[in-house]
Amino acid sequence: MAVPPFTYPRRLLPLFLGLFQGALLFFFALFVTYDEPSAQAEDTSLVANQVYSTFPFFQDIQVMLVVGLGLLLTFLPRYGFSALTHNFLLLNFSMQWALVLQGLLHHFHHGQIHLDLHKLLLSEFAAVTVLISVGAILGRASPCQLLVMALCEIPLYLASEWVIVTCLGVLDVGGTITIHVFSCYFGLGVSKALFRATERPLHPKETPTTSSDLMSLVGTLILWVFWPSFVAVLCQPGDAQHRAILNTLLAMSAGAITTVVASSLLDGDGKLSPGHLQNGSLAGGVAIGVVADMAVPPAAALALGSLSAVLCVLGFRFLTPLLARKLTLHDQCGIHNLHGLPGILGAAASVVAVLVAPKDSSGSHGSQLSPAGGNASAVLEGQGGSRGAGGQALCQAAGLAVAAGAALLTGLLTGSALRLPCLARPPERLCFEDSLYFKIHDQAESPGPESSAEEGALALKEQV
Amino acid sequence: MAVPPFTYPRRLLPLFLGLFQGALLFFFALFVTYDEPSAQAEDTSLVANQVYSTFPFFQDIQVMLVVGLGLLLTFLPRYGFSALTHNFLLLNFSMQWALVLQGLLHHFHHGQIHLDLHKLLLSEFAAVTVLISVGAILGRASPCQLLVMALCEIPLYLASEWVIVTCLGVLDVGGTITIHVFSCYFGLGVSKALFRATERPLHPKETPTTSSDLMSLVGTLILWVFWPSFVAVLCQPGDAQHRAILNTLLAMSAGAITTVVASSLLDGDGKLSPGHLQNGSLAGGVAIGVVADMAVPPAAALALGSLSAVLCVLGFRFLTPLLARKLTLHDQCGIHNLHGLPGILGAAASVVAVLVAPKDSSGSHGSQLSPAGGNASAVLEGQGGSRGAGGQALCQAAGLAVAAGAALLTGLLTGSALRLPCLARPPERLCFEDSLYFKIHDQAESPGPESSAEEGALALKEQV
Amino acid sequence: MAVPPFTYPRRLLPLFLGLFQGALLFFFALFVTYDEPSAQAEDTSLVANQVYSTFPFFQDIQVMLVVGLGLLLTFLPRYGFSALTHNFLLLNFSMQWALVLQGLLHHFHHGQIHLDLHKLLLSEFAAVTVLISVGAILGRASPCQLLVMALCEIPLYLASEWVIVTCLGVLDVGGTITIHVFSCYFGLGVSKALFRATERPLHPKETPTTSSDLMSLVGTLILWVFWPSFVAVLCQPGDAQHRAILNTLLAMSAGAITTVVASSLLDGDGKLSPGHLQNGSLAGGVAIGVVADMAVPPAAALALGSLSAVLCVLGFRFLTPLLARKLTLHDQCGIHNLHGLPGILGAAASVVAVLVAPKDSSGSHGSQLSPAGGNASAVLEGQGGSRGAGGQALCQAAGLAVAAGAALLTGLLTGSALRLPCLARPPERLCFEDSLYFKIHDQAESPGPESSAEEGALALKEQV
Repeated sequence: MAVPPFTYPRRLLPLFLGLFQGALLFFFALFVTYDEPSAQAEDTSLVANQVYSTFPFFQDIQVMLVVGLGLLLTFLPRYGFSALTHNFLLLNFSMQWALVLQGLLHHFHHGQIHLDLHKLLLSEFAAVTVLISVGAILGRASPCQLLVMALCEIPLYLASEWVIVTCLGVLDVGGTITIHVFSCYFGLGVSKALFRATERPLHPKETPTTSSDLMSLVGTLILWVFWPSFVAVLCQPGDAQHRAILNTLLAMSAGAITTVVASSLLDGDGKLSPGHLQNGSLAGGVAIGVVADMAVPPAAALALGSLSAVLCVLGFRFLTPLLARKLTLHDQCGIHNLHGLPGILGAAASVVAVLVAPKDSSGSHGSQLSPAGGNASAVLEGQGGSRGAGGQALCQAAGLAVAAGAALLTGLLTGSALRLPCLARPPERLCFEDSLYFKIHDQAESPGPESSAEEGALALKEQV
Repeated sequence: MAVPPFTYPRRLLPLFLGLFQGALLFFFALFVTYDEPSAQAEDTSLVANQVYSTFPFFQDIQVMLVVGLGLLLTFLPRYGFSALTHNFLLLNFSMQWALVLQGLLHHFHHGQIHLDLHKLLLSEFAAVTVLISVGAILGRASPCQLLVMALCEIPLYLASEWVIVTCLGVLDVGGTITIHVFSCYFGLGVSKALFRATERPLHPKETPTTSSDLMSLVGTLILWVFWPSFVAVLCQPGDAQHRAILNTLLAMSAGAITTVVASSLLDGDGKLSPGHLQNGSLAGGVAIGVVADMAVPPAAALALGSLSAVLCVLGFRFLTPLLARKLTLHDQCGIHNLHGLPGILGAAASVVAVLVAPKDSSGSHGSQLSPAGGNASAVLEGQGGSRGAGGQALCQAAGLAVAAGAALLTGLLTGSALRLPCLARPPERLCFEDSLYFKIHDQAESPGPESSAEEGALALKEQV
Repeated sequence: MAVPPFTYPRRLLPLFLGLFQGALLFFFALFVTYDEPSAQAEDTSLVANQVYSTFPFFQDIQVMLVVGLGLLLTFLPRYGFSALTHNFLLLNFSMQWALVLQGLLHHFHHGQIHLDLHKLLLSEFAAVTVLISVGAILGRASPCQLLVMALCEIPLYLASEWVIVTCLGVLDVGGTITIHVFSCYFGLGVSKALFRATERPLHPKETPTTSSDLMSLVGTLILWVFWPSFVAVLCQPGDAQHRAILNTLLAMSAGAITTVVASSLLDGDGKLSPGHLQNGSLAGGVAIGVVADMAVPPAAALALGSLSAVLCVLGFRFLTPLLARKLTLHDQCGIHNLHGLPGILGAAASVVAVLVAPKDSSGSHGSQLSPAGGNASAVLEGQGGSRGAGGQALCQAAGLAVAAGAALLTGLLTGSALRLPCLARPPERLCFEDSLYFKIHDQAESPGPESSAEEGALALKEQV
């Protein structure tokens, strides 16, 4: 029986993207403007100082998302081009989309949205959720499916973040709950609904090569270096920011060492697994986000980093295969191990941290959505300050539940929507393959004999 | 008929470079000094603040030029080593050479040139022109030819920049006209005069491989991330710099998305071309430079980014083959598509921006060559402020004409000079080949069978 | 005669690392804390400014050590994974270990160590010594040996640095003597004692491939870009830091050009050697460190950069083979050429600089260990100020002697300790091989036919 030939709907992607960029341009022309130039010299100096204090952090985060995360995703040896490009495209798409929605929600005064670097930064944070969620379905979804997913996820993230931070008053300066937990369970929901109960043996193109694993590890190292900037950028300047940087550095350092310990212990020959290193080294950064600026002692940061690395490695070894077997839940990059488990751990740590925190030091907590430059203690007065440690601890737990629950539910719905035939999911035999989307010059390289033979067979099959 | 064996003049390069570095050392010993250490505590704090506000931008630009641009040029699979090294060598050579010439031209007071970070930065900007121009002849010119080209281009750039910025009073904070347009047409002139009317079929080593294209894309992403620093570093601190950063971010984001749209629409199968992605994503940054700090609305930045990406992709698809066929003009990296067309578009946009700008906001324009820390409105008073919008618009157009015209003319002359036999242009059969310049260990790799066979044939041919 | 099969002690590494991380966690829980949050608004602003002025430098250094140095070490084609991972692991291990020891030595007040970004930075500097020393034995030592070496080297470095900077009052802001010279001779001592007098023909896996050399060159470029941050981060803010940045930039620029000159002149065909480029380009940065913030003229920085590049290239060409032949001293990465020779040159330059320095400008020298924010002239009063130029020059020379002598001696002792059989040095036939330590997917690649055949032979041999 002949396999039906797969015709990729070649005009859908440019049409979708072109319409989006056109509509966005129209919206910007009508509603978006810059702040009026400041007349006084003091104001100019103030703006200059804000630029100098935010921009280096902003650039660090851009390097993380565009270069670091992009390279991390290139572990699939024949899918590197797609991984880098789709990551880059989704970042830009989601950032612009979040800019519009955030403008509509928060900043619409007198018919105009005033754009500044801080708002761009918040949009970048929203875009991160998409980039994480994509990891669950990397290599098996078409670019159109990824863009529709981004289109759905950004407003859902903004709504969830509004509930968690503004309504519940959850303290989460590094986005552990609002970003990592949310995006992880959203991605898992999408994966479950999109792929349903299909059994999947290992795809021949799914196995990393040494060189693709090496590129991916370089991506991990770039993410590892700049992670403190991601966690600390939205902190209150001064002690809170200083502490957030130090806590993140300690957690990531302990996480890196513990990953080696855990990965080596789990292997019969004591060898390290590249996948463990690529992910476990970063787990500490995920977990520490929610408590980074709180008055936690340095030892707690170390412990949190170590524990999250252990969880991450154990997740790869035991939980991911279990989920695949029992729930037919597929998680290509293991986002549940890097973002889900450490995120839950971090949220639990924040409950403890809030409960045991000394009364007088809680005034230095910064909240992610605090009005720019706002007084932290004033924020706490309005939110958690008056509710006491127990109340705040409850809120942290409730925030975790809301993030995970809402994400899973909306992810399942979004995943079902992505099954629309017009979005053109590639057939299994063409997954993990750059040449479906890119005009690349494969013949100029020296591919392994088996891979080219197999591809020829596939091409033949398709033409039948 | 036997091909005459090619003997590379092996002592020319070290001789030339050694003499240059020696002469430069001599010049520095005689004339260059640092500023006197500041005696007062306030001065120390002032210098410290200048370092903190400039140095992060400076480092970003260094990463762009050394790592980002270097990697972008490694798309030629057997020429990666040469691309990275020649780019690095030319940057250092041109920067030092520009430092000397700028010192002689501008800063020669009381027999001494006072060196500071700002002057080093201006020299880096001058060196950028060489790095861009080289793209037109990459892979077919010897290192000596490239160095002679740099030797000629730097003084020509400084003269052209002096005419455009100081005499005509053109506003061009991101170097769109002075750097991108100038270096593009200079490079095209050199290419035309150097290669004359020779017909050239596709060289077998000219086709990128997947892995060389991937490295090149990583270079693009690094350039994309740090481009805002390049555009904004010379802006007036405060609102103008803030706006320049935002405008550049918006233009580059729209450009990235539009590149995907345009590249996909132009291909019969809807596939993306790596070359389009590598260049089109950056076109927005080229075009926005000249208007980045002006009072343009955000929507204009988006539109400019999109339009320049479309132009760039269309240029690769239609204009480059046309120029090669009709004018036998060879443009190896497509610099006309990345720097020429978007540069012209940006210049045109600056004419419009100057014409429609509200009177009172024009005071915030910063000029690239304004005396360090000088008052922007004072600059405008002396230059464009008193000449009115119409006059300034004319100047912008005149600046574009001067940059393109002077560059093309002097490029043709320089290219003719590069034909001197002593500069040792490699014969066509040895182009795009690292092993001509580097002691590399080819045999340790597993090259494709056809490439090694061909190389053997070439080697045989040469010995005949 | 059958080769005894090599059984790697698979539980030693996780046991060692796990115990270390556990003990460190215990120590942190007992003794390490953060500074009390500052109550006054001015204090908050002061802390914020310290973060903004130090953190960008800190991040630059992290990129250098984790990504730049990691990639530089990947020139061994089948050892890239190990080079990147061991470098990363050693950085984290050494940094935490240095944090503990420095805390015990310097900062133990009232039973508590107050952690801040400055102390983390000093620990990173200590960790650099380990990362450099490893270069001498890269590829032939097991991870356990490397960790034991780090365990020994960090306290020895701290002691040596205390003698050199605090007792002798040596001025060495960029760590030329305290870090580069010390770590080089320590590494050489370890190599000599560890490998003794064994003759070693070239290992078949020791030869770089084009692509591994290219990755390594990218690492060099990253190090080159960020080196000024490394030299200048501990300078007094203001003029001294400004001058340190400029001097480093000039030295590294001249070094890059001179490397090309020297490498080309030394080769019969005028071709450049990748190894020379990878190391020589950085030699200027090593040499300039000790005089970077002194009142040396710009020409001296250029001369120092050129001279150190020449020394480095000559060292690779003549000294390294000589040492291997005469002393059976093996230096895998050529650390003697990159860190030893330029370090000695820099120390000599500092003697001259101190002797010829004008009296009044010496007040701007900053000392690496000066109390944070302390007055530089006050430091000099207490140390070198009262001893005159001749005394200070003697001290600089004495510092060099102490660093080199102590390092060589303690390195020999450490190397002897590393011969303990339980540390599991891999046999020669399994050196330079990732698959000994990592679960990598070699079969998915297309290895050169000869390498796989040889590996098969090795495997066969082992089973006999």
